[in-house]
Amino acid sequence: MNENEYDLIIIGGGCGGYPAAVYASRFNLKTLVITKERGGLITTTHLVENYPGFISLTGPELAQKLEDQVKANNVEIFDDIVKSVTKEGKEFIITTDIQEKTFKAKTILLATGTKHRHLNAPGEKEFQGKGVSYCATCDGMFFKNKEVGIIGGSDSAAKEAMVLAQNSSKVYMFIRTHLKAEPINADRIRKLENVEIIEGVQVKEIAGTQMVEKVVLDNEKEVPVSGIFIAIGMLPQNEIAKSLDVALNNKGEIIIDKESKTNKQGIFAAGDVTDTQWKQGIIASAQGSTAANSAFEYINSNF
Amino acid sequence: MNENEYDLIIIGGGCGGYPAAVYASRFNLKTLVITKERGGLITTTHLVENYPGFISLTGPELAQKLEDQVKANNVEIFDDIVKSVTKEGKEFIITTDIQEKTFKAKTILLATGTKHRHLNAPGEKEFQGKGVSYCATCDGMFFKNKEVGIIGGSDSAAKEAMVLAQNSSKVYMFIRTHLKAEPINADRIRKLENVEIIEGVQVKEIAGTQMVEKVVLDNEKEVPVSGIFIAIGMLPQNEIAKSLDVALNNKGEIIIDKESKTNKQGIFAAGDVTDTQWKQGIIASAQGSTAANSAFEYINSNF
Repeated sequence: MNENEYDLIIIGGGCGGYPAAVYASRFNLKTLVITKERGGLITTTHLVENYPGFISLTGPELAQKLEDQVKANNVEIFDDIVKSVTKEGKEFIITTDIQEKTFKAKTILLATGTKHRHLNAPGEKEFQGKGVSYCATCDGMFFKNKEVGIIGGSDSAAKEAMVLAQNSSKVYMFIRTHLKAEPINADRIRKLENVEIIEGVQVKEIAGTQMVEKVVLDNEKEVPVSGIFIAIGMLPQNEIAKSLDVALNNKGEIIIDKESKTNKQGIFAAGDVTDTQWKQGIIASAQGSTAANSAFEYINSNF
Repeated sequence: MNENEYDLIIIGGGCGGYPAAVYASRFNLKTLVITKERGGLITTTHLVENYPGFISLTGPELAQKLEDQVKANNVEIFDDIVKSVTKEGKEFIITTDIQEKTFKAKTILLATGTKHRHLNAPGEKEFQGKGVSYCATCDGMFFKNKEVGIIGGSDSAAKEAMVLAQNSSKVYMFIRTHLKAEPINADRIRKLENVEIIEGVQVKEIAGTQMVEKVVLDNEKEVPVSGIFIAIGMLPQNEIAKSLDVALNNKGEIIIDKESKTNKQGIFAAGDVTDTQWKQGIIASAQGSTAANSAFEYINSNF
């Protein structure tokens, strides 16, 4: 195999991509990880207490451990943005944007993740990890018996509010229009005594000193909260998948089966960019590992 | 809720059950783990280098970390054998064998695992972790450039042989009858120059001093090997599932969907006892975590 030719090229170095690299290396697949930012979305979580195996560590620490394991298995990580992926015969041609490199691969794994949709309000960036969070399951526990807010009125936002309501003394839901959760979830939320739904408002500022202390609404009211969860949607990073005509669901997520296969031969996907309902690091890891196995089997059958 | 009543009872304390307990606790579900042996099958693997997050640790060490996390989340682990599970109305009644306890639960998670079928030959038990292994993906790397044997002629055994052939200098397949792998895999195996298929033989002894050095066949021939992989099948521990009429596949494994749901309301399953083709700790962990989420949603809808 030539220098720039690989069995598997993994696009994205996060909780899906890194474990795939470890497994692929152990299957003796010549593997490369191309990533625009090392670690992925988990690096924005200030404390991870639910990744099985670690009682408590920071998001960046977990990402580093996954990366260290990739290096220990001698897989190269190439820091760049993938510009294009095309298929020529049975192989994929990958070009990168910054270093303008071209690679060839028998299989590719799309582990490109998602971005949380941002509110773009003052204080949001400043207080991230200091009261501003994008994941109730990850961070809800840190607001036990405290007052919190959640921004968003979708079904996902309602579910996040239910998780928060288990631990927090009070949960305000700030909704721009009105509650759009599935009726069953909307009913449940309305029955919870410690949840207050405030419709027709926008949070225009998140304020505090060291930590979040309050939010300011567009009607000028101020609501004191210790935590504010932003649940206004996720943006799957599906540009490459789209360019390869990979099947997506109506949220723009890549549809995969239990073997992490997409609808296209030789293209696998793992992690938050896929159509898994529940986005968790541990699930991405398992999907990545599974994808490596599927790539190994595919290469054995087709090359 | 009474003392012996739970939201979720997890049967089995291994890579599937323990992560489920952690997540369930974080959903504020009152949770109990009942297990007959702590840690499960992973404790029989001498070195784990593919569980994402840990470069290298022993199977017992990984099991301990998962268990420590359960304790850190204040979930009780009850050491006993489950004798019976019955359904009364919407709830499950669980009785135990040794301490003769009775528990009630709104949901149950079957994380009962599998047993490797044993050869029951002299040396097998003595050299476990010293050259005798039941998992090529887990342990194959430790026999890089060495001669190894694999016992079994199934499709799984053929796949394990392919994994071994990537690293080992020579792979002997010892098959009691004849190679029964899927034709495509049988072809592949036959094409590999470093694999030698020996049909119609039984390994009657595994021998060595500190470590495995050879196997003795029933035709009295001796074959020198550093490692011997036993791939004569897995036995899913499905007795409880059967008693509850949970749907199984033709291997006796519990059929689950992507949400770790079985065909029965309130009964979830995770880990090696399920119909996942590829048995790995990381996959069990993800399925357990997913099951906790599904149990949480089920309880919210039904109680």
